[in-house]
Amino acid sequence: MAELASWNDGPAKTAVLEFLERVTTGGSAGFVPPPARVAVLDNDGTLWCERPNYVQAYFILDRLREQAAADPDLAADPVVEALLAGDLERAAAGGQSALVGVLLRTHAGMTTDEFIASATRWFEAARHPRFGVPYTELTYRPMIELIDVLRACEFRVFIVTGGGVEFVRAVSEDLYGGAPADVVGTAVELSFERRDGRIELVRLPRLLGSPNEGEPKALAIQQHIGRRPIFAAGNSAGDREMLEHATSGPLPSLGIVVDHDDEVREYAYESLSATDPNAEPILSSAARFGWTVVSMKRDWATVFGAGLDP
Amino acid sequence: MAELASWNDGPAKTAVLEFLERVTTGGSAGFVPPPARVAVLDNDGTLWCERPNYVQAYFILDRLREQAAADPDLAADPVVEALLAGDLERAAAGGQSALVGVLLRTHAGMTTDEFIASATRWFEAARHPRFGVPYTELTYRPMIELIDVLRACEFRVFIVTGGGVEFVRAVSEDLYGGAPADVVGTAVELSFERRDGRIELVRLPRLLGSPNEGEPKALAIQQHIGRRPIFAAGNSAGDREMLEHATSGPLPSLGIVVDHDDEVREYAYESLSATDPNAEPILSSAARFGWTVVSMKRDWATVFGAGLDP
Repeated sequence: MAELASWNDGPAKTAVLEFLERVTTGGSAGFVPPPARVAVLDNDGTLWCERPNYVQAYFILDRLREQAAADPDLAADPVVEALLAGDLERAAAGGQSALVGVLLRTHAGMTTDEFIASATRWFEAARHPRFGVPYTELTYRPMIELIDVLRACEFRVFIVTGGGVEFVRAVSEDLYGGAPADVVGTAVELSFERRDGRIELVRLPRLLGSPNEGEPKALAIQQHIGRRPIFAAGNSAGDREMLEHATSGPLPSLGIVVDHDDEVREYAYESLSATDPNAEPILSSAARFGWTVVSMKRDWATVFGAGLDP
Repeated sequence: MAELASWNDGPAKTAVLEFLERVTTGGSAGFVPPPARVAVLDNDGTLWCERPNYVQAYFILDRLREQAAADPDLAADPVVEALLAGDLERAAAGGQSALVGVLLRTHAGMTTDEFIASATRWFEAARHPRFGVPYTELTYRPMIELIDVLRACEFRVFIVTGGGVEFVRAVSEDLYGGAPADVVGTAVELSFERRDGRIELVRLPRLLGSPNEGEPKALAIQQHIGRRPIFAAGNSAGDREMLEHATSGPLPSLGIVVDHDDEVREYAYESLSATDPNAEPILSSAARFGWTVVSMKRDWATVFGAGLDP
């Protein structure tokens, strides 16, 4: 079995290794055949840093700033003005749908190829406000090792994100391996267009279905993957239903929750659902359902990897 | 490169082999790196027999017959009566939505696990009305070989079906290899339910989005796979947009269309779109767009494999 070199010895590392030993040991009662070894991992706050704001929020705001600079009418829109002033409360004052509409229009009209190119350029140029490095360097080293170990144990690994599926796919192969098809996320509607004999799929300013959080995460897993996972990792209240689903099937399973308790190397905060402010705190769910809590502070020897931890 | 042993020498086999040679030859102008080698194949009429009716239609009707036997009110419903009498015209007389509603209710209320178990049992018991064998034996041997060759050439192969995604997933691993996640199809909405501490996902009598035919096929490919395919295979007017999409990108590509011209070993018919009766016949599209037509009669040495061809 590959190593979890950046994990400190302790109950979390032991729980992961014992679970993997159990499901991969042929002839044992807990053995799970490889096709049923499906792992799902949340992205924001589970695989990469989501503070002070979601990576995608910076991406959208940078684009909105460009658009507003070129379009005085847009710049005068009160929601846009509030967003660019960093005043989220005022931006949301006119209701969620006006706010979401502004956000969705930032990349509407782009083909999917143009969107990927735009995201790729942005990832190269943008820097995290505190750490001063590209966002792509702020993945959690222990979680990357965990993905490698899962794959070494013949798990098929899916990233199941509340973020935009195409946004995460723009970097997922480089960051996590796998293919774009291994990312499940929030999607926008596309339109099918014939342009000079070439088919282009164009982004529309509307979500396709619900944001991929809470119950929709569990439902999207079935629609996309077609199988109940036996391993799930999350960090926010929006991951609860995914974890419940993965850990309540007939096969052995493991749920882990990343606890952001390290304000020195990363941040100390409780990660709420992005869509339901009243959702149960994930650490309470973890205690009730018996999920393994991973303390960033105690269980991880490094957060971002050699030379990157503050 | 693996063999296409059941293909006769001729222009279709040559087109497939030359394409694969081209995209896999390192250093050549047509080389495509493995992550971009995505293949999409329709199922009904492309990978398995769809006559005299879609396999799933038999599955649904058998279930409806069971339900009607147990429920006199259901049996008295004019749509149900007409369906069970085999009178499709009368069944559709009250409008498409009444008909689709009856069909969707046949498996509504089942959990996804129950549905898979039900489909698996049905596949074991049911026999094709003409050939007298299980439907799972009526895959086209040359197409199974093609899937194997694509995988040997490091293609990631997706089944993109107008049929129900869970129905096809019930047998896709056995028939085509790959995982359930490699099947994209028509889906029904699911509900998330907590039952005695266990999460169950329950089928609702409503489609999730559109039937997976025509433009929706191309859009679903992007939403699910996240990449433009470079190889596509279909057989009906409902596959046109998928083929157009796959063959109009910047990379080398190949589109193939299975022509059902063999009434002795299979059927001779023109395969229409299931959702748009006015869609252009696929052989006309193939001629316009330069797709390779595969004649079942001339290009395939066997259709179903040794001992199964009539």
